[in-house]
Amino acid sequence: EYANIDYEREERTGVPEVIYCAGKTAGQVRGIVQNMREHGQKHILGTRCSREKYEAAREVCPELEYDEMSQIMVYQPEPFPLNRGKILVACAGTSDLPVAREAAQTARFLGNEVEEVCDVGVAGIHRLFARLDIIESASVIVAVAGMEGALASVIGGLTDKPVIAVPTSVGYGANLGGMTALLAMLNSCASGTSVVNIDNGFGAGYMAHSINCLTGKREEDK
Amino acid sequence: EYANIDYEREERTGVPEVIYCAGKTAGQVRGIVQNMREHGQKHILGTRCSREKYEAAREVCPELEYDEMSQIMVYQPEPFPLNRGKILVACAGTSDLPVAREAAQTARFLGNEVEEVCDVGVAGIHRLFARLDIIESASVIVAVAGMEGALASVIGGLTDKPVIAVPTSVGYGANLGGMTALLAMLNSCASGTSVVNIDNGFGAGYMAHSINCLTGKREEDK
Amino acid sequence: EYANIDYEREERTGVPEVIYCAGKTAGQVRGIVQNMREHGQKHILGTRCSREKYEAAREVCPELEYDEMSQIMVYQPEPFPLNRGKILVACAGTSDLPVAREAAQTARFLGNEVEEVCDVGVAGIHRLFARLDIIESASVIVAVAGMEGALASVIGGLTDKPVIAVPTSVGYGANLGGMTALLAMLNSCASGTSVVNIDNGFGAGYMAHSINCLTGKREEDK
Amino acid sequence: EYANIDYEREERTGVPEVIYCAGKTAGQVRGIVQNMREHGQKHILGTRCSREKYEAAREVCPELEYDEMSQIMVYQPEPFPLNRGKILVACAGTSDLPVAREAAQTARFLGNEVEEVCDVGVAGIHRLFARLDIIESASVIVAVAGMEGALASVIGGLTDKPVIAVPTSVGYGANLGGMTALLAMLNSCASGTSVVNIDNGFGAGYMAHSINCLTGKREEDK
Amino acid sequence: EYANIDYEREERTGVPEVIYCAGKTAGQVRGIVQNMREHGQKHILGTRCSREKYEAAREVCPELEYDEMSQIMVYQPEPFPLNRGKILVACAGTSDLPVAREAAQTARFLGNEVEEVCDVGVAGIHRLFARLDIIESASVIVAVAGMEGALASVIGGLTDKPVIAVPTSVGYGANLGGMTALLAMLNSCASGTSVVNIDNGFGAGYMAHSINCLTGKREEDK
Amino acid sequence: EYANIDYEREERTGVPEVIYCAGKTAGQVRGIVQNMREHGQKHILGTRCSREKYEAAREVCPELEYDEMSQIMVYQPEPFPLNRGKILVACAGTSDLPVAREAAQTARFLGNEVEEVCDVGVAGIHRLFARLDIIESASVIVAVAGMEGALASVIGGLTDKPVIAVPTSVGYGANLGGMTALLAMLNSCASGTSVVNIDNGFGAGYMAHSINCLTGKREEDK
Amino acid sequence: EYANIDYEREERTGVPEVIYCAGKTAGQVRGIVQNMREHGQKHILGTRCSREKYEAAREVCPELEYDEMSQIMVYQPEPFPLNRGKILVACAGTSDLPVAREAAQTARFLGNEVEEVCDVGVAGIHRLFARLDIIESASVIVAVAGMEGALASVIGGLTDKPVIAVPTSVGYGANLGGMTALLAMLNSCASGTSVVNIDNGFGAGYMAHSINCLTGKREEDK
Amino acid sequence: EYANIDYEREERTGVPEVIYCAGKTAGQVRGIVQNMREHGQKHILGTRCSREKYEAAREVCPELEYDEMSQIMVYQPEPFPLNRGKILVACAGTSDLPVAREAAQTARFLGNEVEEVCDVGVAGIHRLFARLDIIESASVIVAVAGMEGALASVIGGLTDKPVIAVPTSVGYGANLGGMTALLAMLNSCASGTSVVNIDNGFGAGYMAHSINCLTGKREEDK
Ligand SMILES: Nc1ncnc2c1ncn2[C@@H]1O[C@H](COP(=O)(O)O)[C@@H](O)[C@H]1O
Ligand SMILES: Nc1ncnc2c1ncn2[C@@H]1O[C@H](COP(=O)(O)O)[C@@H](O)[C@H]1O
Ligand SMILES: Nc1ncnc2c1ncn2[C@@H]1O[C@H](COP(=O)(O)O)[C@@H](O)[C@H]1O
Ligand SMILES: Nc1ncnc2c1ncn2[C@@H]1O[C@H](COP(=O)(O)O)[C@@H](O)[C@H]1O
Ligand SMILES: [Mg+2]
Ligand SMILES: [Mg+2]
Ligand SMILES: [Mg+2]
Ligand SMILES: [Mg+2]
Ligand SMILES: [Mg+2]
Ligand SMILES: [Mg+2]
Ligand SMILES: [Mg+2]
Ligand SMILES: [Mg+2]
Repeated sequence: EYANIDYEREERTGVPEVIYCAGKTAGQVRGIVQNMREHGQKHILGTRCSREKYEAAREVCPELEYDEMSQIMVYQPEPFPLNRGKILVACAGTSDLPVAREAAQTARFLGNEVEEVCDVGVAGIHRLFARLDIIESASVIVAVAGMEGALASVIGGLTDKPVIAVPTSVGYGANLGGMTALLAMLNSCASGTSVVNIDNGFGAGYMAHSINCLTGKREEDK
Repeated sequence: EYANIDYEREERTGVPEVIYCAGKTAGQVRGIVQNMREHGQKHILGTRCSREKYEAAREVCPELEYDEMSQIMVYQPEPFPLNRGKILVACAGTSDLPVAREAAQTARFLGNEVEEVCDVGVAGIHRLFARLDIIESASVIVAVAGMEGALASVIGGLTDKPVIAVPTSVGYGANLGGMTALLAMLNSCASGTSVVNIDNGFGAGYMAHSINCLTGKREEDK
Repeated sequence: EYANIDYEREERTGVPEVIYCAGKTAGQVRGIVQNMREHGQKHILGTRCSREKYEAAREVCPELEYDEMSQIMVYQPEPFPLNRGKILVACAGTSDLPVAREAAQTARFLGNEVEEVCDVGVAGIHRLFARLDIIESASVIVAVAGMEGALASVIGGLTDKPVIAVPTSVGYGANLGGMTALLAMLNSCASGTSVVNIDNGFGAGYMAHSINCLTGKREEDK
Repeated sequence: EYANIDYEREERTGVPEVIYCAGKTAGQVRGIVQNMREHGQKHILGTRCSREKYEAAREVCPELEYDEMSQIMVYQPEPFPLNRGKILVACAGTSDLPVAREAAQTARFLGNEVEEVCDVGVAGIHRLFARLDIIESASVIVAVAGMEGALASVIGGLTDKPVIAVPTSVGYGANLGGMTALLAMLNSCASGTSVVNIDNGFGAGYMAHSINCLTGKREEDK
Repeated sequence: EYANIDYEREERTGVPEVIYCAGKTAGQVRGIVQNMREHGQKHILGTRCSREKYEAAREVCPELEYDEMSQIMVYQPEPFPLNRGKILVACAGTSDLPVAREAAQTARFLGNEVEEVCDVGVAGIHRLFARLDIIESASVIVAVAGMEGALASVIGGLTDKPVIAVPTSVGYGANLGGMTALLAMLNSCASGTSVVNIDNGFGAGYMAHSINCLTGKREEDK
Repeated sequence: EYANIDYEREERTGVPEVIYCAGKTAGQVRGIVQNMREHGQKHILGTRCSREKYEAAREVCPELEYDEMSQIMVYQPEPFPLNRGKILVACAGTSDLPVAREAAQTARFLGNEVEEVCDVGVAGIHRLFARLDIIESASVIVAVAGMEGALASVIGGLTDKPVIAVPTSVGYGANLGGMTALLAMLNSCASGTSVVNIDNGFGAGYMAHSINCLTGKREEDK
Repeated sequence: EYANIDYEREERTGVPEVIYCAGKTAGQVRGIVQNMREHGQKHILGTRCSREKYEAAREVCPELEYDEMSQIMVYQPEPFPLNRGKILVACAGTSDLPVAREAAQTARFLGNEVEEVCDVGVAGIHRLFARLDIIESASVIVAVAGMEGALASVIGGLTDKPVIAVPTSVGYGANLGGMTALLAMLNSCASGTSVVNIDNGFGAGYMAHSINCLTGKREEDK
Repeated sequence: EYANIDYEREERTGVPEVIYCAGKTAGQVRGIVQNMREHGQKHILGTRCSREKYEAAREVCPELEYDEMSQIMVYQPEPFPLNRGKILVACAGTSDLPVAREAAQTARFLGNEVEEVCDVGVAGIHRLFARLDIIESASVIVAVAGMEGALASVIGGLTDKPVIAVPTSVGYGANLGGMTALLAMLNSCASGTSVVNIDNGFGAGYMAHSINCLTGKREEDK
């Protein structure tokens, strides 16, 4: 009675309903996983999932796997087919890593090859230039940064690929909990950039996947 | 001396530097157009261009064309090759039309087939459902809305295609000049949505193009 | 000396003073309940009441009942007469449930038949359309949603009944603790909607009751 | 092509689509009026309508009437049936009058008896108490106030009827264009109050009507 | 070395430097009290003082007294002479009491007769009218309220005495931590009102004293 | 019908209702003045009054006088009795002068001796120290400043008299239309300061008068 | 009487009082210039000066010179001695030019060699790298940028020289009138950067001068 | 893999990469220190470092020293050469001390003589005037203040040296977590002031050093 799972979503949008665990009790998360299994869902993704909620869910679905850094749990006996294009997730600093990883893990779950590049913020811009080849080879780029969020603009100015900018709440004071990076990214002077909510690695990974789908499936290559 | 045009941008990102006319005098706009012509640029796009600035620019480039509603001027003797996928631009109300048209014209200039659907806001949601087929046939969707910006979420929930949400400043009072629609779109409960700046039709059209490029060029079909 | 209870309020507005427990100590809550009992009050409603405060109050009023999810405690040996119309409380997601329940429990206490519909957010809008009949049969609708709060607009566009929109603080980042949903609901493009404070389930339930009173009392039917 | 009129809205919600003229050109307003007449619509209401736009519309619909203060134009050969209950519109100061009138005219158009009380702000609270009888006799109350918006709370504490609070942008400095009154009204310590957007007289009048409908139609009395 | 006490302040402004304990360690508070005693200061007032910090200070100044509700500690072997006028501290709700008490205790320490009236918020305005005589007899009024802060306006409209308005952080959601009450009070339509910081009972008590000094000292009466 | 003048206000608060002309048409201002004269009011004060509105009012009350800089009009054949204390109005820069003058003229109208000191901002603090004698001799001080508003704190630290701080909208960018000065003044580290709305010279002059009344009337001296 | 010029400022801070013309009438500007001439001031700088105010001032000081783009007027028969170091003013886009020029002209007036580099925003970052030698040769750098203001971070990461960041109001929507660039610059991940107010070219030029003074005077070289 | 240390930064900017420990685990901090030692880095500075993280790092670098108040850890067997000029760090109140100390320790680490003056806020301005000689003798001044942040303006008005203003989060209510002091400092009416992020003692110390470098190295004196 506390949930009303959208079983048709996979059909409608290609992706099953994802469990956003942050606002739910451990009991509710377990209940939803059980319910999804009982309805024969083959793909389960839980985000913002504490280890304790994961443990609760594993009681009814022992095959669930868990990634500490991204707080993501996954059940996927038959993975989705791989998209042809590659996704790059770049992050500005060590503290942005959990958000970047959430994006990467989400995209991987949905059927994408994902490369991660960490700690390439603009305070030492040569570190980014040393990775230009990876930028070139990706179909879509996710740029994760807190503080002033300049990474998205700099990457946006270097490439013709779509860039998904993810502001993070990393920083203090006038970072306003991430609003500063968010606003900066929305005002990027580089074209071909769009933005998701603060710390929303999940949303960025999903959007990147949804774009990458346009490159077709790898298996269709053959 | 007032401009430093980035002639390598077309090579680097596939798109030439675009002239944002709002912050420039008519004289500066004309000067930049002249300079670009002298450097042999084959594609000129000017946005936020008043008729008066357009007239000034036409003195040095008589082939420039102008679209009143979107405030866009274009010079393009040899159009860009067409992308295979189609872009849909949907807008919530009549007052959102100038922003929607800016997105559509930008994407057309860059080499995309664009369909426009107007006045399908959620206050009469059946008007949107009557167009589900167009949504299905597009590769990328641009959703333009002011006030509470709910159109983006509703479209996002109906499709598996990437949605670029464009908040507009349409409304008054607690719309906060568009910030309300912007914030709402960033919090969309529908996945596969990312957001550009308020009234930034250009940015949305550009992003949609950059995504649509992943579908390949039509001429390559043959 | 810390409280100055408004014993005439039931006469003036039809409803006794309600105890907002959040800002009071357990001792103060108990003292107020005791005082109200001593003044012969027949209806006691306490909101935002932790279990600990409820336990304290039960020492002086053992008949008090408690609902965990809505954090509401109630003493009501002789219920208020029932209003003729029905109230519908609809909520967007599982995490909005405590606020929705607070609205429902408040309205029930005041003498209303209340129906609850949960997890019908616009990311899967068919779940809402499946309940159109309940919407039709209600006199007043309370729409509870966090994130971008689009549920209120969508319901508002589907019905001619007054809609009370309740923004919740569910979400993160640019949800600004619920301000985003609040602002969005205030800008609803659907008419016939008005808004209460963030997470204010009590206020919505009260307002819905106050509107529903216009339908008359059921006992007067006969 | 710039509008997509929702002709089924009257059937769905009892009220035809209303023309919000502020964001439209005079030509667009005239075009929409003409289109509505051609579709046989018997009720036309235009809000935020400058005299110039009204004049344009009158060219295609000479029976249109105009009220300067509320900026409302109306065409209604066959008025809607009257609701049984009465609506009171109270405003705090002379400068709030245009918003109050917009609420009153909207409610009258939709089929309600409306009483107006002006300049009863809390700086001279006896002026309000002198009108308690009118408050008593209404079914719904619209309270319009700028600056600190305290009128809504004071009325809310005096009555058991639903109160629709309308903040106005009247004031300066820390009134923040009406946000202060809006926020204050949302935090009203008096229950039974809900709020619409700043300066949104139309929305308040509409909501009041939608509530007042629950009192039944007068003609049904007989 | 962590403090630089302003020993001349009593001479300059009639009041010694007050210890704001919130930002200091227990050790620092004790050190400052000791230092003041060693310099022969006869009046010590500490605000925002937790019981733990008070205990630390009492080690070096056993005569210090403590008031739990207002979090104030006081050492004053020879009280200041009494001002002739009386100060009234009125508060809207039970939860505003700590702030009101801080104002009252500060004013008492500085040499004023203070009357306190609690829980007279505008939701039950007759409770305020029942105290009009106390309002009449005061020289200065401190009005303490959270939520929409309307109490200050209502009192301001009823009296010709200066009103010091103190917004509190009591409330939730769109109360914005007290900013809503603060803004509302600054926009009061009643003249003769000025405002101090959110929850700043100390500042209000001090300002009321500084105004009340203009009535002269009682001892001078004779 | 557009105004509801509070004729009892002079009796209740010692001051007649003041006409805030900004939100009224020239016709309404004239009508209110006429009405007040017809009711025998002996004191008329109009603030925020453009010359054009003044001219309209003079048609029905030729004795009205006008001060350009403060935008104040006054009719006062029999001035109020003078308060014993003196009021000082100090302003930080030349651009703050209109607000400072509004405060001074309001206080003079209400029966106070007022001294004005201009352009003593903290960038050249010796200019303020050169006037310490005037500060000493006043009963109440009004401190008017824009930008960072530091003048209020500096004066507050130098005197034991109550200080009314008036933030102005003077400045640009991060002055946020005066909000910065307002917030700074509310956080003044100097005690004995309270604050009125941005640019509210009227409110400050009124508050200063209301405080200065506590010094008694001069005529009573004899 | 409207100004109180700080004639000792040149002695105290090495720089005479600067006339901020924006908040003053043409008559006041002329009066201040005349007064300064009469007091024998040898250096006059007026900022935010419209051509019309300049013309008024020239009536009393014909040697005044005017620069249209920066809106600066200057009188300086005997220039200040030159500082040894060089100042670089870099700006991101053509629309930032007026602010950049205000910084440059201010610094030149105060005795500095200034180099200007325009239109080197991060959307085409190679344009900045092409000027690394000029960055190397400067003692202080002023970085002027609107929108997301990333230029300051990128320059800061490339140099060991102090960087003064000037946010501009260039942009629209979520640029919030320059607040976005301001906040972004304050959160710069590159060290050695500090920030002045939005559009405050004057303040940046002054700060750069004040820093550059530490390099000593050129004439002292010999 | 979680860090990508910028070993060339010392060469590029004269200062090695600094470890911002707040967003990192104790394990990550230890790993980075170890890595830097292995790369032969001779200067290690860690800021926002809890004692627990320091202990972890000391396991791999026993020579690390720790300062509790500033939360700074330092490893520096061979200190940087001293700059000729002196830096003054002045702070307004005892609670601002940790931020002031962070600035002082950072500047000392980078090779500067630093003087500290504490508790000289403007509420007792004579305390500041008593230190004018120290202000005179410094090359650069760091002014640290919370609440209304007026200290920066007052110092700025007294000196011709560059002032780095550091707003702190000290205060409550309308201090908005330090935003008020930040905004006030950005609007300082005293020229020669620029601002860093809230509580950013590190940034201020770094900027002061970067400015002080222009005075040359002491060893070069000989
Ligand atoms: N980490 C996340 N951040 C934002 N949205 C999410 C996240 N994880 C899941 N979601 C969305 O939240 C929806 C579930 O909300 P609920 O019905 O409350 O479980 C899913 O359909 C997802 O689209
Ligand atoms: N004054 C008003 N304020 C807010 N909304 C309005 C107003 N007048 C009309 N509306 C709404 O605006 C909608 C029309 O928007 P549009 O499609 O842009 O014409 C109508 O359906 C009304 O519900
Ligand atoms: N300049 C002013 N700023 C703020 N409030 C004012 C001003 N002048 C007059 N008022 C107040 O505005 C009230 C009149 O509002 P109204 O009823 O709209 O005329 C008066 O009672 C005054 O207390
Ligand atoms: N463009 C500017 N932006 C900010 N402050 C300025 C500007 N020009 C001058 N100022 C400052 O404004 C002060 C003058 O203010 P005022 O006393 O009103 O003339 C001068 O001392 C300057 O420090
Ligand atoms: Mg790093
Ligand atoms: Mg769900
Ligand atoms: Mg009035
Ligand atoms: Mg109460
Ligand atoms: Mg000046
Ligand atoms: Mg450019
Ligand atoms: Mg650097
Ligand atoms: Mg101190």
